Amino acid sequence: VTARIVEVRKNILRENDRRAAELRRLFEEKGVFVVSLVSSPGAGKTALLERTMRALRGSHRVAALVGDLATDNDARRLARSGAPVRQINTGAVCHLDAAMVGDSLADWDLSGIDILFVENVGNLVCPASYDLGEQLRVVLMSVTEGEDKPLKYPTIFNTADLVVVTKADLASAVRFDRTAALENIATTRPGIEVIELSSQDGTGMESWLRRLAPSAVRK
Amino acid sequence: VTARIVEVRKNILRENDRRAAELRRLFEEKGVFVVSLVSSPGAGKTALLERTMRALRGSHRVAALVGDLATDNDARRLARSGAPVRQINTGAVCHLDAAMVGDSLADWDLSGIDILFVENVGNLVCPASYDLGEQLRVVLMSVTEGEDKPLKYPTIFNTADLVVVTKADLASAVRFDRTAALENIATTRPGIEVIELSSQDGTGMESWLRRLAPSAVRK
Repeated sequence: VTARIVEVRKNILRENDRRAAELRRLFEEKGVFVVSLVSSPGAGKTALLERTMRALRGSHRVAALVGDLATDNDARRLARSGAPVRQINTGAVCHLDAAMVGDSLADWDLSGIDILFVENVGNLVCPASYDLGEQLRVVLMSVTEGEDKPLKYPTIFNTADLVVVTKADLASAVRFDRTAALENIATTRPGIEVIELSSQDGTGMESWLRRLAPSAVRK
Repeated sequence: VTARIVEVRKNILRENDRRAAELRRLFEEKGVFVVSLVSSPGAGKTALLERTMRALRGSHRVAALVGDLATDNDARRLARSGAPVRQINTGAVCHLDAAMVGDSLADWDLSGIDILFVENVGNLVCPASYDLGEQLRVVLMSVTEGEDKPLKYPTIFNTADLVVVTKADLASAVRFDRTAALENIATTRPGIEVIELSSQDGTGMESWLRRLAPSAVRK
């Protein structure tokens, strides 16, 4: 069984890589900057996107795809920003893949989008192996989850381009050890960029928006 | 590829069920009460076990198996209680399975254990399909994760016997909507037992310990 599943898994990942490469070419051609977000359930992906999309809407055309096993709660939350949003329900699958993203976008006019956010299923393991064609992969970790997540889930931190530490407003309430957290990030992924912020009180939002906006060309 | 992976997956789950049934018979024979804990990363499984094992050690012989992709941080934290603890490193695998549990216990004297805790990898999706032979499966959700987790991750709540709401001490800091959370649990899994607690300030610990101890026969 093990040899067979490794082989099947390899085929699936190979097919995903092919489809992701296609998507990446399409995104470049259409001038869409694609940012994916991965994290544990409840780390604040949707809250960050709500605030981000509202902040960017004046200057950029933004849109979002949102993955969840069930419900369209997140899509409904994000749609309140007025931007186009679509929910992908994965059923029992613990991650998005490039085919789900490509199929969801099939009838969208990508030329009308400057920044597309892709919010993955809440999971610190499964999304690591699946390239979605994104230009920037962001891994979120909240101060309430503890400082050791990078050490315990190294794979996801190794596939990310940027770490966002969320819920900074709760740091003192949960006695968050910032030095230990930054050390653990640096140990797992030396040199990776880190932004600390709070979607509640707005701390650090400026650095985050500055990181996103110059990469996105306003068409 | 899809048909083949469904077939391989079925075989793996069938083999896991067989092994889990064996374990369940063994646990009954040896009189070990086995409690497994599943949750998002950082929901407080290890913190709850630290406090629980310290509280029960006077009256029961307790032990723990702890699953993580990498590190033995959790085993080291729990070992401070003085109880036997073993870490299982799953590598890239997002859940424990019955074989990992069985293999880890192979050289343990189960007759010397009253309660065995099995802490799964932090993940609200993958552990759902894998029976570990436990008598009680507990799903933890922290108040900091938001109220919607039962709706978004229904499968794991459907395989659990008990919901523990953790980090109750942070409820007001995060404006936790307790009524909505309890409603979402009840919608997903009508009638399931819920215990609300804090491993920090001890709120609700008594109900939790009362739930565990009578099920475990002191040998």
